[in-house]
Amino acid sequence: LPFSLKILGANSATPAYGRHHTAQLLNIGNHHFLIDCGEGTQERLKTYKAKTLKINQIFISHLHGDHYLGLMGLIYTMHLLKRKDDLHIFGQRGLKEIIITQLKYSESRIHYRIHFHELNPEISETLFEDEILLIKSIPLTHRIACSGFLFQEKEKPVRINKAKLPQDISLQNIIRLKNGLDILDDDGNLIYKNTELTLPPRRSRSYAFCSDTKYDASIIPYIKNIDLLYHEATFLADKEEWANLTFHSTTTQAGLIAKSAEVGKLAIGHYSARYKDLSPFLNETQQIFKNTVLAIEGETIDVED
Amino acid sequence: LPFSLKILGANSATPAYGRHHTAQLLNIGNHHFLIDCGEGTQERLKTYKAKTLKINQIFISHLHGDHYLGLMGLIYTMHLLKRKDDLHIFGQRGLKEIIITQLKYSESRIHYRIHFHELNPEISETLFEDEILLIKSIPLTHRIACSGFLFQEKEKPVRINKAKLPQDISLQNIIRLKNGLDILDDDGNLIYKNTELTLPPRRSRSYAFCSDTKYDASIIPYIKNIDLLYHEATFLADKEEWANLTFHSTTTQAGLIAKSAEVGKLAIGHYSARYKDLSPFLNETQQIFKNTVLAIEGETIDVED
Repeated sequence: LPFSLKILGANSATPAYGRHHTAQLLNIGNHHFLIDCGEGTQERLKTYKAKTLKINQIFISHLHGDHYLGLMGLIYTMHLLKRKDDLHIFGQRGLKEIIITQLKYSESRIHYRIHFHELNPEISETLFEDEILLIKSIPLTHRIACSGFLFQEKEKPVRINKAKLPQDISLQNIIRLKNGLDILDDDGNLIYKNTELTLPPRRSRSYAFCSDTKYDASIIPYIKNIDLLYHEATFLADKEEWANLTFHSTTTQAGLIAKSAEVGKLAIGHYSARYKDLSPFLNETQQIFKNTVLAIEGETIDVED
Repeated sequence: LPFSLKILGANSATPAYGRHHTAQLLNIGNHHFLIDCGEGTQERLKTYKAKTLKINQIFISHLHGDHYLGLMGLIYTMHLLKRKDDLHIFGQRGLKEIIITQLKYSESRIHYRIHFHELNPEISETLFEDEILLIKSIPLTHRIACSGFLFQEKEKPVRINKAKLPQDISLQNIIRLKNGLDILDDDGNLIYKNTELTLPPRRSRSYAFCSDTKYDASIIPYIKNIDLLYHEATFLADKEEWANLTFHSTTTQAGLIAKSAEVGKLAIGHYSARYKDLSPFLNETQQIFKNTVLAIEGETIDVED
């Protein structure tokens, strides 16, 4: 099953050097989650041939314009594309009012239902859960209410080891094996131990989005050992004081968070518009945490099984 | 003095084929007026190297998303560019609430003052006036409250005919000439008639923006004999019924308005996203009104003296 993150934009504050505001499309199995939605996100979705109508959940971290100003246009475009499915929008207090006010004055009747889910930025809550996936919020420390998002695959079933499987095994017993149970005869005596006929489950993968935030080690328990962390690095290391003042992070700080949390891979982004060349971002962060990549618009970061 | 219209976007409803939502930059003398502000307008301003901070007046025709969703981002970007001058925004009832609500939740303190001017879509009002220019609204007929905008240079002073000017003429008498007065001696006797020493004034130029609107001949008195008319033509002529239903116009209808109003030039735009090739728009409209051009993103339409 796919577990891949498409970067639709990773610039902060103002678009610059062809780099756009924050937006990411996370595909896990059949789910297509949109994380943040800066101005023009609908156009990037089109450019990268994303299946816009397959997005059923949108997560907006906070109400600074560079993280949500594309949402209203996307809502209208989904309407024009004749969307029918319900759309779930997770955002801070105020997002619903902002959207509803605009719908009111446009006198638009949207042909699908929008469900607004108000985040509580103070705590980690479960936002979504199904058979394969759990999504939780992460409290972040920014100038205004801001939440990160953690996407975790649930523990997967053991895999049937076809090479070892007896030819005459019943479907019922295969289901027992998948549920981790041993195979017994009618009298309850052991015939096969589960482990004899199965392989261990595939890894449960995980991704966390942490932007915008100042350096805050209190998020580490939420992101401990995850496969992929997106952590903002708005500034280079020499701007640490300014980063603290504006509740943003530097390259070094993002690297320290990734290192302490022992994540598999770190992707950094939310670059300040003051920087044209991004290579110092990578160099500085890799000095702290080797397995770092730059979030680059249009690129996809896959998390392997 | 310049009188030129830069097209920043001329597509309707949804961006398509690299064409963006409505936005125009009108430069008259030292004035830089922004007319409508679809999503991503700030980026087009940058692409076409417009002097964003010189825009002091923004005119928003109506509250459909394709005409204003770039405004909030532009307001933030003007702040980041350290704008100090007051900004005047003309729009329908609701625009102020939409902007103020978003500023409130972003907890942003914008470093310049915004003045909101609420349009009355039922009548033609004077929106702005200075020594050289008059701007009025035009009531349009659309699904929701919508105004067009008429930009008219005032009558210009006569021009001094330097070839005829006596060498000993006083500064005071030059001012008299510019004001259209004759030159008299101390006793009030005529020395020179004004027309002996002057040339007629340069033409007063005019532009009207009429979008979105269904075909409505009642706008003709407002735009009679103007130099340049932008009139929407969302659909080709065969979609007239659909145009009427959606309160839009066809190519033919735009041409008829231009012809009846005897304008100098017609620019059409607000193309539906269903059309890739725009040449039929030009052909159809020119069959009714010869001096028609397509509004094409990035192109400039100059109005000559």
